[in-house]
Amino acid sequence: MPAAGAVRKQSFPPLQLPAKGLFCRTSQLNSGNRASMSAFSRFTPLISALPSTVPFVGPEALERQRGLTVKARIGANENGFGPAPSVIAAMRERAGDIWMYNDPENFELKQALAAHLGIQPANIAVGEGIDSLLGLIARMIIEPGTPVVTSLGGYPTFNFHVAGFGGRLVTVPYVDDRENLDGLLEAVKRENAPLVYFANPDNPMGSWWDAEKVVAFARALPENCLLILDEAYSETGPDSSLPDISALIDLPNVLRTRTFSKAYGLAGARVGYAIGAPETVLTFDKIRNHFGMNRLATAAALAALKDQAYLAEVVGKIQAAREAIGTIARDNGLLPLASATNFVAIDCGRDGVHARAIVDGLIQHGVFIRMPGVAPLNRCIRVSVGPKQDLDLFAEALPQVLKAIG
Amino acid sequence: MPAAGAVRKQSFPPLQLPAKGLFCRTSQLNSGNRASMSAFSRFTPLISALPSTVPFVGPEALERQRGLTVKARIGANENGFGPAPSVIAAMRERAGDIWMYNDPENFELKQALAAHLGIQPANIAVGEGIDSLLGLIARMIIEPGTPVVTSLGGYPTFNFHVAGFGGRLVTVPYVDDRENLDGLLEAVKRENAPLVYFANPDNPMGSWWDAEKVVAFARALPENCLLILDEAYSETGPDSSLPDISALIDLPNVLRTRTFSKAYGLAGARVGYAIGAPETVLTFDKIRNHFGMNRLATAAALAALKDQAYLAEVVGKIQAAREAIGTIARDNGLLPLASATNFVAIDCGRDGVHARAIVDGLIQHGVFIRMPGVAPLNRCIRVSVGPKQDLDLFAEALPQVLKAIG
Repeated sequence: MPAAGAVRKQSFPPLQLPAKGLFCRTSQLNSGNRASMSAFSRFTPLISALPSTVPFVGPEALERQRGLTVKARIGANENGFGPAPSVIAAMRERAGDIWMYNDPENFELKQALAAHLGIQPANIAVGEGIDSLLGLIARMIIEPGTPVVTSLGGYPTFNFHVAGFGGRLVTVPYVDDRENLDGLLEAVKRENAPLVYFANPDNPMGSWWDAEKVVAFARALPENCLLILDEAYSETGPDSSLPDISALIDLPNVLRTRTFSKAYGLAGARVGYAIGAPETVLTFDKIRNHFGMNRLATAAALAALKDQAYLAEVVGKIQAAREAIGTIARDNGLLPLASATNFVAIDCGRDGVHARAIVDGLIQHGVFIRMPGVAPLNRCIRVSVGPKQDLDLFAEALPQVLKAIG
Repeated sequence: MPAAGAVRKQSFPPLQLPAKGLFCRTSQLNSGNRASMSAFSRFTPLISALPSTVPFVGPEALERQRGLTVKARIGANENGFGPAPSVIAAMRERAGDIWMYNDPENFELKQALAAHLGIQPANIAVGEGIDSLLGLIARMIIEPGTPVVTSLGGYPTFNFHVAGFGGRLVTVPYVDDRENLDGLLEAVKRENAPLVYFANPDNPMGSWWDAEKVVAFARALPENCLLILDEAYSETGPDSSLPDISALIDLPNVLRTRTFSKAYGLAGARVGYAIGAPETVLTFDKIRNHFGMNRLATAAALAALKDQAYLAEVVGKIQAAREAIGTIARDNGLLPLASATNFVAIDCGRDGVHARAIVDGLIQHGVFIRMPGVAPLNRCIRVSVGPKQDLDLFAEALPQVLKAIG
């Protein structure tokens, strides 16, 4: 394990193909095993050098590849409690509108988000999930060879986008299972990096920093380095972990990304948004797919935002499910890490091979979970919250799997 | 009007900012009037040079800007007849599944499309509408300065993507309101262009080439030039206009793009697909947003594909609506052009200023239509099909507008 604060560099195309482990947490199940050759000769050198990979393998692919049925879908950090009944009702009611393109300006949703957050619509860009926004931000800043700082073992889809634009990923190891703010800052300065990614609360570890540390980090960054502060899990953490919206809104080099996929239970809808200074947010309009939003997804997001009572209720369920997952872990002699997200990382006490065996064993019982991709994080498994019946299946299968592994 | 076969070059960023007219068919209503300056200093030179524009202004924006209500939404080539009742039922039934991410491999939809078309799933890439796929193809091939051939006045969103990756657009004028196949081929060869865009049937003119001419064009192209054959309107044209699926499937330099937005009535769902040789199609996996598809949209597309009886019915309605639009045009002394699409281009007999006045006049009556962006196509207005009540509004408003213009 690298010493705290140590930085490991990892090169990406066109310099070097990325390590597969970073891109596919379910390792050998990668559909990217297919050849990446092409008989068309004039793709760009960058594109030609990229692998045909997938950041995550979906549970449906696991079912097909292994000929089994997923009974407990608690691996993709979805929200098994689902969206509010009012949200489902809104989608059903508006289904007949699907023949119309969505408003390309996302006017209504930006108005509603701005009112909810106490900012202006001009502070908000809407996109097809945070993944899409991450790709656009990468495109705004990265040219081949551009250094980009992130944590070693952080969100693989961000790394996928960095590689996709030829960026050179500079990774900073976690310290005590948290992203290393001092290390990230030091790496940015040393590399003169124009872009740094930091998730708070963090995926895949579930850890977090308090708001004041986050704000101090953002303000300590050079002005010419853009911070992606990924707050996909902002609704499920302690209040103390979430910087006030006003704390960073004046910084043109900060974009906070949020989503309706997690606490709001709308992963399949693809609605994410970025919050920042107007002149930075406006840059999305230069390159985004203006007509990319699904019309019902927008209606769903609007309805979800209106139903804050349901959000509070579901956040309570998520907290209770985190506790339940922790209890199951401890009952099996494993160590659940504290979590501010809708999942729990469980330290299985050994190495990545051991954790992988647990993941692979559980899927044979129809229990779909995932695990971090790189050491030392990959001593853990990652279990998403879900209804009682899902966690019961996990509780039933885990001891059998651990016994079988020995 | 340029002579047949003449080619006009147009430079794009980083060489030169694009002409606004190409990007915004509703001219002065462009939300891109906002400043494109940014206080963050390290966006790429390409991004810094791009305008914050929008390829099309939506009817919702018109309503907000002009303080009126759109009563007849017949401007965006949507399908006002809507999707099949079975499709709406499928979305309502599956609404509760929205908490789950869509299968990132789009396995089921690719299987169904392959079976429907008589090809393999490996021949198909699925994306968030053709617009998204066009952006990915542009990214695969274009570097700053790369020459890209298209028709002068062709699909603006393609031009938006070309500009977005710094390509140099080489445009070929229409001849007799059809895309000029000989001119496109000549331009590709002269410029040694690696990418050419051709829509059949065509938007914005509604014209088309017979299948044998399309196949001959594709086969005459240099192997090192990729053809985007945009077949968004493939279901609404005469059979003779659509090359057999087997006619081009062996060519690694052809991608045919299709959509559920038009005949299938699912514009708001965002489901498009590209058809091509497996090794070319696989390239999408290198850079696409693997989790970008909306789960209900996928369910809707699957249901739509199953309901071919409804498709046949709605295509009949579209043909009848084209006739009705033609009759309205002739009743007002205007000339409807033959159309293979879900819209009709109407030659208003004068220039772009005149056509613009008609478009602007109609919106005051709540009738939303659009028009081509550049001369000589912009002597026309473009009216999308819709139910009788929409066309009645158009029929009622048009003579009043023409009279007011004089």
